[in-house]
Amino acid sequence: MKGVIISIAPDVSIVDVSHQVAAQDIAEAGFILESALPFFPSGSVHVVVVDPGVGTDRLPIAVRYHSGFIVGPDNGCMIPPLVAARAVDAETGAILDGAAAARIENRELMRDTTSTTFHGRDIFAPVAARLATGVPLEHVGRPLRRLTVPASRAPVSAGGVTRGRIVHVDRFGNLISNVLGTTVSPGADIEIGGRTLHGLIATYQERELAALIGSTGRLEIAVRNGSAAELLDLGVGAEIVISERK
Amino acid sequence: MKGVIISIAPDVSIVDVSHQVAAQDIAEAGFILESALPFFPSGSVHVVVVDPGVGTDRLPIAVRYHSGFIVGPDNGCMIPPLVAARAVDAETGAILDGAAAARIENRELMRDTTSTTFHGRDIFAPVAARLATGVPLEHVGRPLRRLTVPASRAPVSAGGVTRGRIVHVDRFGNLISNVLGTTVSPGADIEIGGRTLHGLIATYQERELAALIGSTGRLEIAVRNGSAAELLDLGVGAEIVISERK
Amino acid sequence: MKGVIISIAPDVSIVDVSHQVAAQDIAEAGFILESALPFFPSGSVHVVVVDPGVGTDRLPIAVRYHSGFIVGPDNGCMIPPLVAARAVDAETGAILDGAAAARIENRELMRDTTSTTFHGRDIFAPVAARLATGVPLEHVGRPLRRLTVPASRAPVSAGGVTRGRIVHVDRFGNLISNVLGTTVSPGADIEIGGRTLHGLIATYQERELAALIGSTGRLEIAVRNGSAAELLDLGVGAEIVISERK
Repeated sequence: MKGVIISIAPDVSIVDVSHQVAAQDIAEAGFILESALPFFPSGSVHVVVVDPGVGTDRLPIAVRYHSGFIVGPDNGCMIPPLVAARAVDAETGAILDGAAAARIENRELMRDTTSTTFHGRDIFAPVAARLATGVPLEHVGRPLRRLTVPASRAPVSAGGVTRGRIVHVDRFGNLISNVLGTTVSPGADIEIGGRTLHGLIATYQERELAALIGSTGRLEIAVRNGSAAELLDLGVGAEIVISERK
Repeated sequence: MKGVIISIAPDVSIVDVSHQVAAQDIAEAGFILESALPFFPSGSVHVVVVDPGVGTDRLPIAVRYHSGFIVGPDNGCMIPPLVAARAVDAETGAILDGAAAARIENRELMRDTTSTTFHGRDIFAPVAARLATGVPLEHVGRPLRRLTVPASRAPVSAGGVTRGRIVHVDRFGNLISNVLGTTVSPGADIEIGGRTLHGLIATYQERELAALIGSTGRLEIAVRNGSAAELLDLGVGAEIVISERK
Repeated sequence: MKGVIISIAPDVSIVDVSHQVAAQDIAEAGFILESALPFFPSGSVHVVVVDPGVGTDRLPIAVRYHSGFIVGPDNGCMIPPLVAARAVDAETGAILDGAAAARIENRELMRDTTSTTFHGRDIFAPVAARLATGVPLEHVGRPLRRLTVPASRAPVSAGGVTRGRIVHVDRFGNLISNVLGTTVSPGADIEIGGRTLHGLIATYQERELAALIGSTGRLEIAVRNGSAAELLDLGVGAEIVISERK
């Protein structure tokens, strides 16, 4: 993919956001994109290749929003960063004012031959490189008004209790949930893996096993100088329950 | 190595093709080079550091072909991409018209002190950086007319039956063989790990365990949303047999 | 972090030195920095994010020395490269003539909001990017005369016997010690993991299990075409004893 990109746009900076997404995990890809994209300069073109449906009828798409472009499959993994950027409606996937999406249809922007198994190299990379050199979104293909929304894995709240899920395990073994830190009060009880943690801490150093709001703004479970994933034997998908104290 | 390169050629783009080659596996390195190099722009300089013989009498070499340069050890790992580029004869390793090879001998192009264990940093990286800045191949050292050819692992065909091998397992667990897709008919029977698969499919989604022609143009064995390597408990070196139906 | 860097300094080259440091291992980080930094061009800005104390009272610092800058936490991981560059005193951590250090205090050089858990992204990356664009060290914060020195893990020598430790296991399984090659004579006996090796070899090819001076200038234990770490079942921290023959 990088060879294709620098063949078309020799002067671009290429940054690898992550090679750590569990194979074909759309929810984890969405989380990583949402965490990383706000830190890139305006005008960046982001390419997503978490693409379990490559070669099927899922659409290849390109989306323009206020900070730049995202190119990849219409499988839901772009929804979290685009919702956070107020470019897409979280419930319906509708494109909001100020943003635009297109099907990738113009074969002149793709590689001459396109495989059925590696659209990253043959379709997404060349289209992204051409957007980076100034080709307008309108040349990519017909406009799309609505993106595919992934089956919801958002936290559910009722009666002072919020049920969320672990959506990412980082390389330190910290368990990162889909629960926004702004929705958790500092004194809440947090249950995970049969344990109950009382209240949030500020940094990784304070306690053996602890809950904190991490650098992505989400509720995380961490172990001081160790791996929470190993200690609790938990991973992506595990339930986390937050109870606000009365 | 990157520090050495940007010290000599500050404006080059450096791309990591792969850090996933099994330690010192020359055949896998050759496969990855052959898969990736055609996608890089003309004039690229490629450096190979799969070098089990570092410090012995294997030659450090540089090769110029129509698309650019390859720098590394003369241990056979450059043969697949150079054969595919019609720069080297597959059987004899002879350099073909339009290409040229040189031993790396000119100490002025290397680092001042060279270790016996890391020629990548001390010899290949500085020579590659200098080729990228326009130093001609003729300054590198005496010409070489023939490269070392690896012990053949090419598929063998007889009586409608082709016997090949798995040469790479990608990060999804897909088993990639050395059998070119152009030599397999869509209705062939494919045996691997005690199973027989009837015919090729087009994409990863169609069946549980399936054979397809992957993005590298080779016959691959894949599992829908899973790992064929795990399911079959197979890896690099496993045999694959293709029988054309009568 | 890379998004933050290119937002501030779009034209810099970003090189990943290592993502292989064992989680939060300051000694291994120091070893890798010392091994890699001499190969980078003068004026490079290096960022260290091995930071087990993030969010506690350890200082964020920036150091200028003859070859460029190092930015990161004052936790000892910068000491080995700075001692090797004669910028810091190994025993006391005092900054030596020609070098300078500063606390990172100027909030205008940081991101607008700084998390307590990811100073790499919010403090070190933006300060490094600004140093790369020419902001002087004096704008970063008050000068610091002395850095934190890590608990000593230097080898100890007495009566012709040197006791050192393994400080890094590379991806081939080579065990790399903290013993400088210049202090080991070619005929010394080397004990590790219950085995005694007689004398040094020059390259990885010569013997099954062997001691050699590797590309970092340190004593290493290697296995021909295999992993010394696996064969001996040893890792970072293991003892190595060198006895000079009488």
